[in-house]
Amino acid sequence: AIVEAAARLFAEGPLAGRRVLITAGPTREYLDPVRFISNPSTGKMGLALAEAAKAMGARVTVVLGPVGEVERGDYEVVNVVSAEDMAREVLARVEEVDCFIASAAVSDWKPETRAAQKVKKSEGPERLTLVRTPDVLAEASRRVSGRTGRPALVGFAAETERVVEYAREKLERKGLDAIVANDVTAPGAGFGVDTNRVTVLTRDGKQRDLAGTKREVAHSILDFIKDYLPPRAPSTPSPSGRGSG
Amino acid sequence: AIVEAAARLFAEGPLAGRRVLITAGPTREYLDPVRFISNPSTGKMGLALAEAAKAMGARVTVVLGPVGEVERGDYEVVNVVSAEDMAREVLARVEEVDCFIASAAVSDWKPETRAAQKVKKSEGPERLTLVRTPDVLAEASRRVSGRTGRPALVGFAAETERVVEYAREKLERKGLDAIVANDVTAPGAGFGVDTNRVTVLTRDGKQRDLAGTKREVAHSILDFIKDYLPPRAPSTPSPSGRGSG
Repeated sequence: AIVEAAARLFAEGPLAGRRVLITAGPTREYLDPVRFISNPSTGKMGLALAEAAKAMGARVTVVLGPVGEVERGDYEVVNVVSAEDMAREVLARVEEVDCFIASAAVSDWKPETRAAQKVKKSEGPERLTLVRTPDVLAEASRRVSGRTGRPALVGFAAETERVVEYAREKLERKGLDAIVANDVTAPGAGFGVDTNRVTVLTRDGKQRDLAGTKREVAHSILDFIKDYLPPRAPSTPSPSGRGSG
Repeated sequence: AIVEAAARLFAEGPLAGRRVLITAGPTREYLDPVRFISNPSTGKMGLALAEAAKAMGARVTVVLGPVGEVERGDYEVVNVVSAEDMAREVLARVEEVDCFIASAAVSDWKPETRAAQKVKKSEGPERLTLVRTPDVLAEASRRVSGRTGRPALVGFAAETERVVEYAREKLERKGLDAIVANDVTAPGAGFGVDTNRVTVLTRDGKQRDLAGTKREVAHSILDFIKDYLPPRAPSTPSPSGRGSG
């Protein structure tokens, strides 16, 4: 609590002393030791959010899927591979934060079984049975639902059609405060590129279009959603050691 | 032909004037616009081979699967995504080279169909039907089989068990000159790491274990296989413009 109070004293900015948990990157769902189902997420948007939150004074943890050699800033990174790994690491932390931003592109399905050895080509599989992975954001939302001072919950909706409609539906279904929707097939948006073009929707019906570099968009998103964070607790550290919740 | 002759005059080293084609990285086989089957290859071994071949005087082309932001050297790079893309780019070039090294981790299967829009979670697919992709190396081998001065053909066998046995079988089945076998589950070998530990087998029964950084292993592999390249043509440029085949 003393360390946290000290950090709060020195941090400045609109998120000073706030704890922000962010998921970023893809997940991989292996069907044997060398093959997996995944998606093209590079983690750039999530890492830009981490940088921006840090610059605004927050204490940041990123639960990061496999993205290879990327530049990481001065914040905690927890490396994971699969959706199950990601869910476990998020659920272990989400009750302790002021804001959870689920920007990772989590695989929705995984192979039902994972072969212990590389499957030889001559054998198949010609049919792969897929089962659902945990919905990280929905589980996190359920975990904190109804709690006093629960974290702001921010989702991402990567869509290829009917973007705003699908995003609004997801926001409501998962009990979110805000959702960042983007059309990943639009030019200058989506996976791997350095720019993004998104629409942010909030539970109270606000809607804002944001565009620019992923860094700029990250700042704009945080600036827009910071009003949805829970009220700050009195500055006295609480008995539980949670100094700024 | 004049340019090629000039390049040959200036290049030095054991592969001076030789043309080397290398595949590197994974391939991705999409099932919808945002999901694919792939593998953890980072292209490091193939790019190390390209560097080494270049340093030995060769003219190098790399057909490179999606590997994100990696350092690329001073050689031609042809970017591809799927196994079909890779096969097409290789077959367009393999008849013109002195050595083809297939180090890419090509996906063996792809989804039978690719949905035009992102498949919604509620719909499925719960079963994914997979079909075989083109075998890039086997097709390249068939293309040049029996030709005078055909390129040396070098495969890679990434295995998780019975490594040398599977590699020898692959060498014979695909009509290769050499194969580089590695156990991708061994410590300090395989995907993503900077070191490798391989066994090189040749069609005439030689076998050599190599270990070190991927850069060192790349040099050793090329040094070992250079004797399998076709004889150098007379230095007069041929009428077809193929100056050093």
